[in-house]
Amino acid sequence: MQHLLPLQYEPILERALAEDIGSGDITANACVPAGHQTRATVLAKAGGVLAGLAVSCRAFSMVDNGVVWEPHATDGDAITDRQPLATITGSARALLTAERVALNVLQRMSGTATMTARFVEQVAGTRARIVDTRKTTPGLRILEKYAVRCGGGFNHRFGLYDCVLIKDNHIAAGGGIKETVARAREATGHTLKIEVECKSLVEVREALEVGADIILLDNMPLEMLAEGVALIGDRATSEASGGVNLSTVGAIARTGVHLISVGALTHSAPALDISLEFDGSL
Amino acid sequence: MQHLLPLQYEPILERALAEDIGSGDITANACVPAGHQTRATVLAKAGGVLAGLAVSCRAFSMVDNGVVWEPHATDGDAITDRQPLATITGSARALLTAERVALNVLQRMSGTATMTARFVEQVAGTRARIVDTRKTTPGLRILEKYAVRCGGGFNHRFGLYDCVLIKDNHIAAGGGIKETVARAREATGHTLKIEVECKSLVEVREALEVGADIILLDNMPLEMLAEGVALIGDRATSEASGGVNLSTVGAIARTGVHLISVGALTHSAPALDISLEFDGSL
Amino acid sequence: MQHLLPLQYEPILERALAEDIGSGDITANACVPAGHQTRATVLAKAGGVLAGLAVSCRAFSMVDNGVVWEPHATDGDAITDRQPLATITGSARALLTAERVALNVLQRMSGTATMTARFVEQVAGTRARIVDTRKTTPGLRILEKYAVRCGGGFNHRFGLYDCVLIKDNHIAAGGGIKETVARAREATGHTLKIEVECKSLVEVREALEVGADIILLDNMPLEMLAEGVALIGDRATSEASGGVNLSTVGAIARTGVHLISVGALTHSAPALDISLEFDGSL
Amino acid sequence: MQHLLPLQYEPILERALAEDIGSGDITANACVPAGHQTRATVLAKAGGVLAGLAVSCRAFSMVDNGVVWEPHATDGDAITDRQPLATITGSARALLTAERVALNVLQRMSGTATMTARFVEQVAGTRARIVDTRKTTPGLRILEKYAVRCGGGFNHRFGLYDCVLIKDNHIAAGGGIKETVARAREATGHTLKIEVECKSLVEVREALEVGADIILLDNMPLEMLAEGVALIGDRATSEASGGVNLSTVGAIARTGVHLISVGALTHSAPALDISLEFDGSL
Amino acid sequence: MQHLLPLQYEPILERALAEDIGSGDITANACVPAGHQTRATVLAKAGGVLAGLAVSCRAFSMVDNGVVWEPHATDGDAITDRQPLATITGSARALLTAERVALNVLQRMSGTATMTARFVEQVAGTRARIVDTRKTTPGLRILEKYAVRCGGGFNHRFGLYDCVLIKDNHIAAGGGIKETVARAREATGHTLKIEVECKSLVEVREALEVGADIILLDNMPLEMLAEGVALIGDRATSEASGGVNLSTVGAIARTGVHLISVGALTHSAPALDISLEFDGSL
Amino acid sequence: MQHLLPLQYEPILERALAEDIGSGDITANACVPAGHQTRATVLAKAGGVLAGLAVSCRAFSMVDNGVVWEPHATDGDAITDRQPLATITGSARALLTAERVALNVLQRMSGTATMTARFVEQVAGTRARIVDTRKTTPGLRILEKYAVRCGGGFNHRFGLYDCVLIKDNHIAAGGGIKETVARAREATGHTLKIEVECKSLVEVREALEVGADIILLDNMPLEMLAEGVALIGDRATSEASGGVNLSTVGAIARTGVHLISVGALTHSAPALDISLEFDGSL
Repeated sequence: MQHLLPLQYEPILERALAEDIGSGDITANACVPAGHQTRATVLAKAGGVLAGLAVSCRAFSMVDNGVVWEPHATDGDAITDRQPLATITGSARALLTAERVALNVLQRMSGTATMTARFVEQVAGTRARIVDTRKTTPGLRILEKYAVRCGGGFNHRFGLYDCVLIKDNHIAAGGGIKETVARAREATGHTLKIEVECKSLVEVREALEVGADIILLDNMPLEMLAEGVALIGDRATSEASGGVNLSTVGAIARTGVHLISVGALTHSAPALDISLEFDGSL
Repeated sequence: MQHLLPLQYEPILERALAEDIGSGDITANACVPAGHQTRATVLAKAGGVLAGLAVSCRAFSMVDNGVVWEPHATDGDAITDRQPLATITGSARALLTAERVALNVLQRMSGTATMTARFVEQVAGTRARIVDTRKTTPGLRILEKYAVRCGGGFNHRFGLYDCVLIKDNHIAAGGGIKETVARAREATGHTLKIEVECKSLVEVREALEVGADIILLDNMPLEMLAEGVALIGDRATSEASGGVNLSTVGAIARTGVHLISVGALTHSAPALDISLEFDGSL
Repeated sequence: MQHLLPLQYEPILERALAEDIGSGDITANACVPAGHQTRATVLAKAGGVLAGLAVSCRAFSMVDNGVVWEPHATDGDAITDRQPLATITGSARALLTAERVALNVLQRMSGTATMTARFVEQVAGTRARIVDTRKTTPGLRILEKYAVRCGGGFNHRFGLYDCVLIKDNHIAAGGGIKETVARAREATGHTLKIEVECKSLVEVREALEVGADIILLDNMPLEMLAEGVALIGDRATSEASGGVNLSTVGAIARTGVHLISVGALTHSAPALDISLEFDGSL
Repeated sequence: MQHLLPLQYEPILERALAEDIGSGDITANACVPAGHQTRATVLAKAGGVLAGLAVSCRAFSMVDNGVVWEPHATDGDAITDRQPLATITGSARALLTAERVALNVLQRMSGTATMTARFVEQVAGTRARIVDTRKTTPGLRILEKYAVRCGGGFNHRFGLYDCVLIKDNHIAAGGGIKETVARAREATGHTLKIEVECKSLVEVREALEVGADIILLDNMPLEMLAEGVALIGDRATSEASGGVNLSTVGAIARTGVHLISVGALTHSAPALDISLEFDGSL
Repeated sequence: MQHLLPLQYEPILERALAEDIGSGDITANACVPAGHQTRATVLAKAGGVLAGLAVSCRAFSMVDNGVVWEPHATDGDAITDRQPLATITGSARALLTAERVALNVLQRMSGTATMTARFVEQVAGTRARIVDTRKTTPGLRILEKYAVRCGGGFNHRFGLYDCVLIKDNHIAAGGGIKETVARAREATGHTLKIEVECKSLVEVREALEVGADIILLDNMPLEMLAEGVALIGDRATSEASGGVNLSTVGAIARTGVHLISVGALTHSAPALDISLEFDGSL
Repeated sequence: MQHLLPLQYEPILERALAEDIGSGDITANACVPAGHQTRATVLAKAGGVLAGLAVSCRAFSMVDNGVVWEPHATDGDAITDRQPLATITGSARALLTAERVALNVLQRMSGTATMTARFVEQVAGTRARIVDTRKTTPGLRILEKYAVRCGGGFNHRFGLYDCVLIKDNHIAAGGGIKETVARAREATGHTLKIEVECKSLVEVREALEVGADIILLDNMPLEMLAEGVALIGDRATSEASGGVNLSTVGAIARTGVHLISVGALTHSAPALDISLEFDGSL
């Protein structure tokens, strides 16, 4: 699974901690003696798929670099209600101060991983890959795309910079599929694939003719989609999008399409319930 | 409704645009002629409550300061499917480049406002206010707390810095409710309120005795909650939390509690479907 | 005393070091051999109250993480002329390069703590707390508010975000005290206190009627102030401001007022003289 | 007078506004209607020297770019109590939100300019220039050094990077004045002057011999200082430091020394009282 | 040609201006009257290809937003010695202060464009595209990759994120070409191409078998290169690298290879001489 | 040699790593097993002068703080083709991910040091110092000025802030040399030297009369230059600029001029070829 570097996620944690702590954690500072040490368990409160354990636990040591943590599970694991995920040990103040940020990150990432896994289960036995979209939370794309991978999904392009995706508005402005793809091929580097969004079979044929690497079959009824997939075969990668949910995804996958992109993985996944339980002896 | 200043949200947009555009929008640059002007409509694709129109439309002029926009609705409005929300006019490239960031912000904020409004409807006729929590998206708290207000809710504390909230772990570390509240009162400024989390009526009585400003009745069964609310009366602000959803919130409100805090408003609200439709003449 | 986290003050030190070092400490680099180790003592050159020892000593290890320091006093201590406050050991270049930034921070914070302590002494035996204001040094508020606490004072609100303070101009714009407080109560969260600035006893009565949590008695002659304090009693927190200095503060406190706010603590405290003395063997 | 560029001071204002506004100006947002326009006067409340008018007024338009301001005085002017300094017109909310930051900047800068002018007055008729030091407020050096110029003073080096200043500890580490100056001359660029701190006349003679550009006569009794100044003549620039205050500076200047450096200008100048008065019609 | 957005290059200019201006342009401030207006011409001092005109001229208005500029040429133009490229009008101080930063950017970008054009000329009449590498100046990649396009070249991948490029060390760690490509195909998204570096014809055959999208023929003697290109045909994109200079590039291109990557375009292009000439009437 | 502090160069590395890694090193993550350890040698591929070894090797531990490195050479050393410069040991992924950034920094800095040394060799036996200019790479000035020192050169001013340099345009705006120098002397601090650019011997005489510290003899034919140098003698520092290259610099130096400034050191030095060779056992 593609790895996250501290230099990629630490700035996200820094901003989250600054946002939450502001001028100071007045409660912990006032109520908890300075030297107080404690231990707490990151505990699942529901079943799902884990994502972001190391990322989120880094929040504790950013508040106090004396805090240590020991993992009891690994990103990508299926976890169950009441399963201990990690033990955190150190300054009681630091644990209380960082708790919310750590959980906000972990719950959100695990929420996305969990929803992804639900979709992946539905397409088991087909060749379809569940992929994400650019409909991610502003500022958190790298974490959410990683969470999709933890859930067994795959990443579509990361941004506007790593794949050409020609949509209807580009085609309208560019003068038709043929002309627009030709422009793209002329202007962009040879290291980039070109994907074309198609809304009809006529467009699919046109995209195949101009040698699109990937063809996006957008919002097609199931039958038309199947026909499109058959037309494409292995001459290009086929991708389905639009109207995808847990009850439709199986049938979509059975058309033989290569990829199914699901915006909900990142724009509408509910948080997975995870809490921090302090030892009684706090 | 409490206002957002550009200097508060522009850095969020800058980061989101940088994240999405990266080394360049290769598709728009390749396919759309540089001088091409166009017009597009921000269009609701589902009913809900609008939040973030001005914030999100700022993304377009950050990409190209020649882009202008005209609003057709106001944050806090109930909107319906197919309702035009704003018209954006300017460089076709800029509109295509900023589109996803603008929609990601607007859909997320409107999703939170919409879910808030659903909760607010359920407590109509009671004195209960629906309030948010610190379970927000890392880096977006200010936008999400604003969206809660757009949906008719109210804000709980913004962070660890603007209200003392003494929870079970603080009480354990601080040596009981009485002692811990005394510490807080001694250590913190007179401008801050003190809230105490209680899990039993015994604790509620103790919190009242020491003069807590707000008493959080956490995860209590409905009857115990009602008893707690009655005990508190108007000697303090009462707040219910835990197990709150659209089917339980009405009964909770009818206990007479002042506040009901709902984490889901910000950690699990699905995005509201909103799109950008380009004019045919693009 | 409320604690400062490294993630709150390190950016301040980074900026201060960047400002002072710029393209390089040409003198230390040119004159001091690279491997030269030394030891130096942070030494009080005047009596006062210490604030910022750990914060300021962090500057040395930010320049060279091999530098270590040992404290001989604690923030909040009354210190005397020639008292050693800490020993710093490490690279001679690093000590010389960071010296000025460390002292600038320490002298300023200790200056504020010292002036605060002078005011606190004057109100001994009364119930009045000395509190600060928002008249702080741009960018250093968190350090200065901490220094006030080191000197035995208390913090008023930290910013525009953690307490409602309705002043004459808000009242004028909002349509009178009653109407403006009602607006505030409707618009802001229940976690925030509401303070009202009053310039006459009529206004005090009005503020009490609408249930202000704190009443600021601004620039009142001593007799009127006493009358205001009596009116308020314990129905609200009373605060005096305006015309407060070391010769007036005692009489003000003896009116029984709860709080006396003093802008000079942060806008006009002279630095406390503290130096760094290098061992003879440098 | 050396000019300040917006790109130099705007980041300082941004940080100050972020520090003060945080999650929002809850009072102005709640109490002042959104469209309310007003006018206010920046008004001197004490006599002194003005510094920072343009810098501080920029805070208003950073909060709302519709705010405009008109100056009635110029940095460097001697101002008197009740003198109007500028008129600010625009959104009432914006004026109230930015007021404190603007005044904090203006009062501090004018405080330094005012204290500088007091020292400059005392040396009138001599050739001595009053100069500042690096004992400035962390993060605000550029503003404070500018304020010193507004008060009629001159700037010493800005940081560790723009002049070699060899102090006792450098000399100890470098192996005596002669050797240390030789090292400096060998290692640093020809564009930089070399200053040597001397504590005795023996050291002054040695510094002259090795061709120091500037000789700092540190903490010398007046007679020794006079002798040092005479020794130096015009073979180098002479500078006096230590024990300089308003009662001693005149005599020091009359020794004929070229420069007198005064740390208090930037580390201990009290704020100059300046307020923002809103029009009655707010 | 792929476009640069202000939000992509303005931070580079901000850093460059901060680096050069530091605590102030002491010469312009001291010598040039504040209100002085002037006009200057950006003038080529040598022939070459222009790149970065708009980017570099933005430096002037960042120093003073009253400065305006009018272009007389366009990025990508072949320019000749003494050709006027733009006219800049505004504050004389601002022009002098920003001059060096603007020229540093423009000369460097035009230097890269010019060297690229020299290479492109040598391969005229073949199908080879000249492409850049990741051997760019730290922090300036986006400008340099744009300059390569201005010179008629094409961009290879922008970073480690937008194309898989499997080199010898990856192959060694991954267990051979076949196994390593399989790992890459399994782990990365379908939107990314896979390039394999080959040092022998055996490796080329292996890379073809596993379906590499691009095959990098690294440091091959001309004959082996030609054989590799023939083997590949149009089953993959062929790329030559290593030992490419102006005297070898023509022969390399005549092997029929698709792409020739040249590190020198960005790591060793000398600046193109361009100056700013002030009108006599300054 | 003047030292670089981590707090000065780490931000440069952070930006370079962010620029190159972006959303992730997809190749290393996909192909190299997570726990794989390796060792690699930084190896010279050409002869030259080393600069930036510690700075560039820091890139590895910024990616993974478990990476360690051992130097085999020192900045300023003359190095030969195939000379091992350092050994890097740690995570194979980290080494591969940071490799390009580290080499880009090291090659560029060593390129500048190498070109500087070539110029320094040519002036051996004269008193001339080779100095750099402000024609540096935007954002990298501090590294390039350091590299010049590694190559045996000296630094001219670092920016617009640490030396007054009055050029023709300043003189035109300021009203002649005499008047402009007087303005500069009046307005700037005594810690700064004043340099005057002269294009004729008349101007040189005028500059001497007004006591310029440094006189820049710009673009003078060799004979005029010699005459200028003779005129100046040791009354000021003399500097030659314009038309300086490896074939002319010797003759220029033999005029007896103190300084010769060479823009090419930083704007046109080709990178020195240095690579990272992984151990066979990777």
